[in-house]
Amino acid sequence: MQRIYLDYAAATPLDSRVLTAMQPYFAEKFYNPSATYLAALDVKKDLETARARVARILGAKPTEIIFTAGGTEANNLAIQGIMEQFPGSNIVISAIEHESVLAPAGQYAHKIAPVTPEGVVDIDQLIKLINDKTVLVSIMYANNEVGTIQPIRKVAQELEKIRKVRRQKGNKMPLYLHSDAAQAGNYLDLHTARLGVDLMTLNGGKIYGPKQSGALFIKSHVRLKPQILGGGQERNLRSGTENVASNIGFAAALEIAQNERHAEAKRLQELQSIFWELLSEQVSQATINGSLKHRLPNNIHITIPEQDNERLLIKFEEAGIIAAAGSACSASNEEPSHVLRAIGLSSAEAQASLRFSMGRTTTEGMIRKLTQTLVRLV
Amino acid sequence: MQRIYLDYAAATPLDSRVLTAMQPYFAEKFYNPSATYLAALDVKKDLETARARVARILGAKPTEIIFTAGGTEANNLAIQGIMEQFPGSNIVISAIEHESVLAPAGQYAHKIAPVTPEGVVDIDQLIKLINDKTVLVSIMYANNEVGTIQPIRKVAQELEKIRKVRRQKGNKMPLYLHSDAAQAGNYLDLHTARLGVDLMTLNGGKIYGPKQSGALFIKSHVRLKPQILGGGQERNLRSGTENVASNIGFAAALEIAQNERHAEAKRLQELQSIFWELLSEQVSQATINGSLKHRLPNNIHITIPEQDNERLLIKFEEAGIIAAAGSACSASNEEPSHVLRAIGLSSAEAQASLRFSMGRTTTEGMIRKLTQTLVRLV
Repeated sequence: MQRIYLDYAAATPLDSRVLTAMQPYFAEKFYNPSATYLAALDVKKDLETARARVARILGAKPTEIIFTAGGTEANNLAIQGIMEQFPGSNIVISAIEHESVLAPAGQYAHKIAPVTPEGVVDIDQLIKLINDKTVLVSIMYANNEVGTIQPIRKVAQELEKIRKVRRQKGNKMPLYLHSDAAQAGNYLDLHTARLGVDLMTLNGGKIYGPKQSGALFIKSHVRLKPQILGGGQERNLRSGTENVASNIGFAAALEIAQNERHAEAKRLQELQSIFWELLSEQVSQATINGSLKHRLPNNIHITIPEQDNERLLIKFEEAGIIAAAGSACSASNEEPSHVLRAIGLSSAEAQASLRFSMGRTTTEGMIRKLTQTLVRLV
Repeated sequence: MQRIYLDYAAATPLDSRVLTAMQPYFAEKFYNPSATYLAALDVKKDLETARARVARILGAKPTEIIFTAGGTEANNLAIQGIMEQFPGSNIVISAIEHESVLAPAGQYAHKIAPVTPEGVVDIDQLIKLINDKTVLVSIMYANNEVGTIQPIRKVAQELEKIRKVRRQKGNKMPLYLHSDAAQAGNYLDLHTARLGVDLMTLNGGKIYGPKQSGALFIKSHVRLKPQILGGGQERNLRSGTENVASNIGFAAALEIAQNERHAEAKRLQELQSIFWELLSEQVSQATINGSLKHRLPNNIHITIPEQDNERLLIKFEEAGIIAAAGSACSASNEEPSHVLRAIGLSSAEAQASLRFSMGRTTTEGMIRKLTQTLVRLV
């Protein structure tokens, strides 16, 4: 039986081109990049080339890129790194952030901006929550559960207005915008100046790169308190002997994903449309969660009233289809998803919801098989 | 020209057996271990098997092992994780700890125990520094520069006496022993109960495992404040989608290193003896730094008076020999090594010192070549 994997939002396989790029750094060019001999300097140069390649994609300077062990660490460094520098300040986040933003933000004075029933942050409400002591706003670029794309540029424009007022009032508290772009790399523009972000999280494990690879973009003027101290690597912001293989793999994965993003987005949008159409024809009781317009092209998220998603997932798996009820990070958690609650679903509706996230191997045939299976099961 | 690599304390190449163990987890068994389908549960099971294998080597329970991104993160989690739970407490460390212990400890009330001229911590002095508010003592297992092995068992016994007195006095402040064993894995016994440690850091990048792999042993009764928050992986102590390939690679590397440690230690001790003998015969002005008796079998650390180590390293490199002046982590730092200062060397002596760290590829021929080159250059 052909296995149809539809959980690309949880994990992507390592691209073979990425593994090829990593290979020389396992046993040959294994030297510590902080050492002073030529072989080590050569490794250091390759590491810095990888950093420059990431920077180019982000429209950033190489010094603005810090390699991290994944998206969670990058989110923690961004939030804890800012908040610990400004005691007495507060942070505003959206109601649908990933746990790795929610949890660190929860350690400080924080406010949570609601989202519309479409799953998009309510900018007016968000702006109202910002006060003179707000130092950081963290809004994800694309949601990991319902796939909605957040209006980062618009948020950045509004923050710029507030900064102007602060300057006029003599309020010296900076106001930074961080965005968790963990789910964005395969499909969206990552140019940081166009987005208007001061900090941005990238995650290699979601873009066919190595697990626990990633980066934090930190605009030049932003100062962070480092969280992991020691040898002073990564401009003293993140100590530890660099994982050169992983960082180079991450850079390769990001380049491939960004080079292919237009074509891949178009291809998956077509599959998405086919699915929506078949769904409305054949499973008319089902509803789609999250905006159709502002949405990652690979995300399908539906509620099928009166159904139990855990039972359905088992049935799907028996039929060879792998999907998810929510994000993998909270899969073991019995609570209904905070994202689905934020867009207005009841507990019962949340527990009747399924996420199918497509990827590079997904074909039209698989989406038709998915629909057929869905029809059969409900 | 044959290249002779003698900087194994800075970095080890990935063992091909380790890479073989990792391979299935890159593109096949790539699933998110927190997901609920069988393919993901299978990956989770493999991850937990790796944890159990690490635990067995340490004489620990699997729940006492937390995988981290390397030794630096583990040291930070141990120190920050304890110290943030006990405001007003203090930490005692030795004067020759790695930067990834020195720097996090430096954030809190801390005292630094001196070492003998032999590079071994002075236990009497250490014990005198412990007061009623000391919650943590962190003493490395083996030093990364001069290779001296610290009397961890002895320290643990002394701490046990202090704990007893505290109980009698009704002082409820716990007293934990952490040891950074980053350099120990290839040669020393890692059994945590025999050592008497409450927390211990392991580092994959020094034992022919993946860079940025490692683990922190945390004895069951010890509570830590997590540093990286989010999805709650690693018993909520270290969030982020697990790097299964890397963790499995780390477990494999640790097993191989520990299985081979007796034979490898014996082999390298012989090479060490040959070197000491040739040195005293042929470069009689040279002095050896650090205890000969309490010493890692792969470490050679010498001072050659009136010589400039940077010049010598370049000459060695021209002769095909790769070595180091200090630890790679501080190689770019112009300050003389804090370790060498702690054992009583002057700045001038520190700058006339060299570290040669041997490994699996090192042969007697290479050590003879090293001596010949040394004779020629000085």
